Amino acid sequence: MTMTTPSSFASTSPAVAATVHAVPVAPSTGALRPLGLDEVRITGGIWADRQRVNGTATLDHIEHWLDREGWLANYDLAVAGGLAEGRRGREFSDSEVYKYLEAVAWEIGRLRAAGADAAGATSSTGEADAAASLARLEGRFRATVARIAAAQEPDGYLNTRFGRPGQEPRWSDLEWGHELYCLGHLFQAAVARVRTAPGADDGLVGVARRAADLVCETFGEGGLERICGHAEVEVGLAELGRALGEPRYLEQARLFVERHGRGTLRDIEWGRAYYQDDAAVREADALRGHSVRANYLAAGAMDVAVETADADLSAALERQWDRTRERRTYVTGGQGSHHQDEAFGEDWELPSDRAYSETCAGVASVMFSWRLLLANGDVRHADLIERTLFNVIETSPDAAGTAFYYANTLHQRVPGAPADPDVVSPRAHSSLRAPWFDVSCCPPNTARTFASLAAYLATADDAGVQLHQYAPSIVRTVLADGREVSFEVLTEYPRSGTVRVRALSDAASPWRLSLRVPSWAVGARLSVRSASGEIEQQWPAAPGMVSVERRFAAGDEVELELPMAPRFVAPDPRVDAVRGCLVVERGPEVYALESVDLADTALAASDFADLRVDPDIAPIDTGDGRVVVRLTDRRTDAAADVALVPYHAWAERGPSTMRVWVPAVGG
Amino acid sequence: MTMTTPSSFASTSPAVAATVHAVPVAPSTGALRPLGLDEVRITGGIWADRQRVNGTATLDHIEHWLDREGWLANYDLAVAGGLAEGRRGREFSDSEVYKYLEAVAWEIGRLRAAGADAAGATSSTGEADAAASLARLEGRFRATVARIAAAQEPDGYLNTRFGRPGQEPRWSDLEWGHELYCLGHLFQAAVARVRTAPGADDGLVGVARRAADLVCETFGEGGLERICGHAEVEVGLAELGRALGEPRYLEQARLFVERHGRGTLRDIEWGRAYYQDDAAVREADALRGHSVRANYLAAGAMDVAVETADADLSAALERQWDRTRERRTYVTGGQGSHHQDEAFGEDWELPSDRAYSETCAGVASVMFSWRLLLANGDVRHADLIERTLFNVIETSPDAAGTAFYYANTLHQRVPGAPADPDVVSPRAHSSLRAPWFDVSCCPPNTARTFASLAAYLATADDAGVQLHQYAPSIVRTVLADGREVSFEVLTEYPRSGTVRVRALSDAASPWRLSLRVPSWAVGARLSVRSASGEIEQQWPAAPGMVSVERRFAAGDEVELELPMAPRFVAPDPRVDAVRGCLVVERGPEVYALESVDLADTALAASDFADLRVDPDIAPIDTGDGRVVVRLTDRRTDAAADVALVPYHAWAERGPSTMRVWVPAVGG
Repeated sequence: MTMTTPSSFASTSPAVAATVHAVPVAPSTGALRPLGLDEVRITGGIWADRQRVNGTATLDHIEHWLDREGWLANYDLAVAGGLAEGRRGREFSDSEVYKYLEAVAWEIGRLRAAGADAAGATSSTGEADAAASLARLEGRFRATVARIAAAQEPDGYLNTRFGRPGQEPRWSDLEWGHELYCLGHLFQAAVARVRTAPGADDGLVGVARRAADLVCETFGEGGLERICGHAEVEVGLAELGRALGEPRYLEQARLFVERHGRGTLRDIEWGRAYYQDDAAVREADALRGHSVRANYLAAGAMDVAVETADADLSAALERQWDRTRERRTYVTGGQGSHHQDEAFGEDWELPSDRAYSETCAGVASVMFSWRLLLANGDVRHADLIERTLFNVIETSPDAAGTAFYYANTLHQRVPGAPADPDVVSPRAHSSLRAPWFDVSCCPPNTARTFASLAAYLATADDAGVQLHQYAPSIVRTVLADGREVSFEVLTEYPRSGTVRVRALSDAASPWRLSLRVPSWAVGARLSVRSASGEIEQQWPAAPGMVSVERRFAAGDEVELELPMAPRFVAPDPRVDAVRGCLVVERGPEVYALESVDLADTALAASDFADLRVDPDIAPIDTGDGRVVVRLTDRRTDAAADVALVPYHAWAERGPSTMRVWVPAVGG
Repeated sequence: MTMTTPSSFASTSPAVAATVHAVPVAPSTGALRPLGLDEVRITGGIWADRQRVNGTATLDHIEHWLDREGWLANYDLAVAGGLAEGRRGREFSDSEVYKYLEAVAWEIGRLRAAGADAAGATSSTGEADAAASLARLEGRFRATVARIAAAQEPDGYLNTRFGRPGQEPRWSDLEWGHELYCLGHLFQAAVARVRTAPGADDGLVGVARRAADLVCETFGEGGLERICGHAEVEVGLAELGRALGEPRYLEQARLFVERHGRGTLRDIEWGRAYYQDDAAVREADALRGHSVRANYLAAGAMDVAVETADADLSAALERQWDRTRERRTYVTGGQGSHHQDEAFGEDWELPSDRAYSETCAGVASVMFSWRLLLANGDVRHADLIERTLFNVIETSPDAAGTAFYYANTLHQRVPGAPADPDVVSPRAHSSLRAPWFDVSCCPPNTARTFASLAAYLATADDAGVQLHQYAPSIVRTVLADGREVSFEVLTEYPRSGTVRVRALSDAASPWRLSLRVPSWAVGARLSVRSASGEIEQQWPAAPGMVSVERRFAAGDEVELELPMAPRFVAPDPRVDAVRGCLVVERGPEVYALESVDLADTALAASDFADLRVDPDIAPIDTGDGRVVVRLTDRRTDAAADVALVPYHAWAERGPSTMRVWVPAVGG
């Protein structure tokens, strides 16, 4: 599924890659080149399970609700007339349709890659199933695009909320109207399509192009010097520019990025920091304000910085990432402390109570971190991506993929009520996961992330391939000098810490395999085995990147052994809200104490607020994904060994109270 | 200024007092009878200072802003036409006018009482000044009432936001319209007027009566079975009923109270708990939802419970008060943890970060506690009132009385920006105190509280007088059996813990003087001195009430010695957010560490987040209202003795960071 770029990229970025892969982000330059869905396929484990559920149940679920809530029908109303009276949904509902389309596009790409990979295999049943799924998704995709395309106005304008008779005029409410935000998601959907089905004749790319042209005409030099109240158009335009080789779009992204901080948006109760209009991107110290907006903007700004070789802007963004990760990020990777404005707090303001940790902020944070990783190769970005994937993005959907957390609290004091599977929920209601929300960005946002997840696992540079995230997978790519590299990753990670990388072909010359050793994996070891099974080398691997360079022969194995013993982690002493508490981690997973697990213990009658964990008794791995700790009741002195579950698996067994940070004995 | 009740009270409450005093609350029955402004006068100290500033600068300030923002002019527009286009202010702006009127009425009462008291004195200058102030206030009051009265519709309806041509219809938005809420404040203003200027011909009482009659007709039995989204009309109607002897108003208050919890208000994102429509008042376990609404409702419900002898309802409210005080109240007495919905959190959810602790919730909490105290005589209610007065209500205004905190955070991580004295602020903006708010309830709410403060100091029962709050003051009252009691309170409390009560007249028979020993005052002592100065008795006084019963002779003194050494207080171990921290208290005052006080110490360069307090070195009273503690920097080990200021005095010296709870060494 390697494809040729539709047109040569812009003169502003001459180092364009000759080949375009199925990736969400394709910088023209940078330390690392991302490998796409056409190069990396997840074949098993937790992420393959999630991708399967996502590609079937979740996409069906989203389409059902988009239909039921009338968000798709809004496009038909635009054609038939009657939008002013009949339109349903919030002002940003169009964007959910585009995120959904993007998810479908990636899923089509994923299934095609799997099909291509399986083409040589014997099982034709799986192949037939995959073909049927593909045909179904492709049909849906085209039908949805057709409805959208019909609603686009002749000059390219596309939005069901503004601009038609009886509606407010176009661009009349940049603070809250979300018109450019919606288009940003349209552009990302078009990028997914152009990179997974190049040359497809469904028309989405044309729709996006016409809309992007209008944006450039309207908001370009000499036009409206404004920005959108919700960043997203920047990152959408930048990537559409890359995907279509259109420098105007990148330039428009640059203009929007540079216009932040000029106060062109109205001041509001929470201040202009809410929409990052309080300070220039290159002058800010940390991400601030609405955490999804902040990360989307930072991601788009990084695209601009890379394509314009703006070292000052890159450095500012790296500095902001550093401070945000250290001081404004929950142990889960979650970001955003405030319910009121869905915003970051000040440094160290990270209460578990009412932690907002919006699912979409997790998605956006991965977008930002991934762009930094590609630019500078710093493994710390991959560390945060892993933490966020396991503990925010995977936490949102339930096992069935049809109910979601909008916000991901770290402390549930009162058991949440089961959400009615047939009712739209308020976004951050303290319930169990809910099927759909008034503001329903998390279902399609997780869906597009899971469908494209393989594109966040590995990268390449001139010397070889870097593995950042571990999952059973197959990687096949071609290095810049034309050498083909292919290997399989065999692992039960994160259940096991053993990651085996087995070469699938004989290399003509040495290439370098690099493996990320997560920051928590102190004491990791690396070994190299020849195809005959003989251990040739073995050495300790410190956190960071560890590399093996050799002329790999088919069957050669590199084995990384990550220490997976569960561990207590203490908070930074500057975080007030969890002083005196410990969290249990095992590998990349954060664990949670859930009241349902006290039921058959001596603590069954204890008040959850009185439980204390004994830090002197090491947490024990049960082997089935749970971790046992010793808890005592500070009032009664009753004690029991209690199993914790991975945080992402909490609230799957009915109403319960829960805490991630547990006070230590004496606290 | 003792006055005869305008008409005999209702048949539902036969035990009506023959005399009506200048009190905000006059239950017909209960353990304690409140003493009014005509019986208690504050003569010096912190509260006299505050009352003086309040009666001049603050009232001027409020009138200026009501005028400037057009909230007063709305009434003129109602008469002239053009409200639909020209009306200014939020939907509840009328209520600020009524709170202001109430404050002016109490201030008039306060000045009259002082005048009456000073009538026998020699200084005629002070008298002339007071007379001038009184005349000015009376003029303002009448002028404002005239504008309001002119806007009342013939059937009694009164609101500038609804019901006129071009406006939404009356009662069409009970969730958010605040019409009944505004009237509740009108009723409280009328109560203040009727009790401080009985028989005044300004017309306010008539306006209130006509509006209350309309409320009863509209929402009575057989009428609209709805409630207001913001409780207040209940407490307003109940007291208006008491003040005018009109049982219909009390009955209507009862109906509104009983209708809470029937879900007649629309469900919203935060749930119906927001407006206490989730559960019946008599069935709830704790105050919940919006903290001002919750306390106003509880106060009104207590009035209903008392007047209808509803023991079940009283018991439910006491239970709710208990749990709320223990689990949902900040160390300052502040209530409300959430910014988003200005609401209580769950039990133990009391983060200092973003503590909301709305000023008006403090006012409302005092209203609720005071009614419980009158009903059951439990000194714990007076304890909470004191804590809230010193650490919430007194914190809101600055020393000059012209800038206010809307919310009272317990932790300021980034120095607030000075508020422009000429600009309306968002309500909970992290600034220094601000002159006025879009939602500007705190200035007039504190003003009415300070003006009537003397009415919260003392009560009487058949046996004698109870002193609940200590301030230099003079108390003159008549017990139920006709005995006159008068005494003076001499104290520098809270600078000093010595409270001397000196009898001003010879009693014909023994009466009982009871003094509250606050819960923190372990080790207090009481002594009795005859007029000759001889100590007759001396004994330890445990927290609670301590009493002396004797035939007091003029000059006899009872002296209460409260231990005022500053103390460290540890949080309840179930409050997660401040685990490992200590707070410094001295007497009723909570102290705060403010960064400006580090300037000349070895910790000047320290990060505020790194400071730790040494719990082994006792805090030292400086004698000037400050308390010194030993702080160390956990990174550098630098140490210094640093002065803390009373929390209510923080942010008076420019931008600074601040914390009330300070981590202890080792945390």
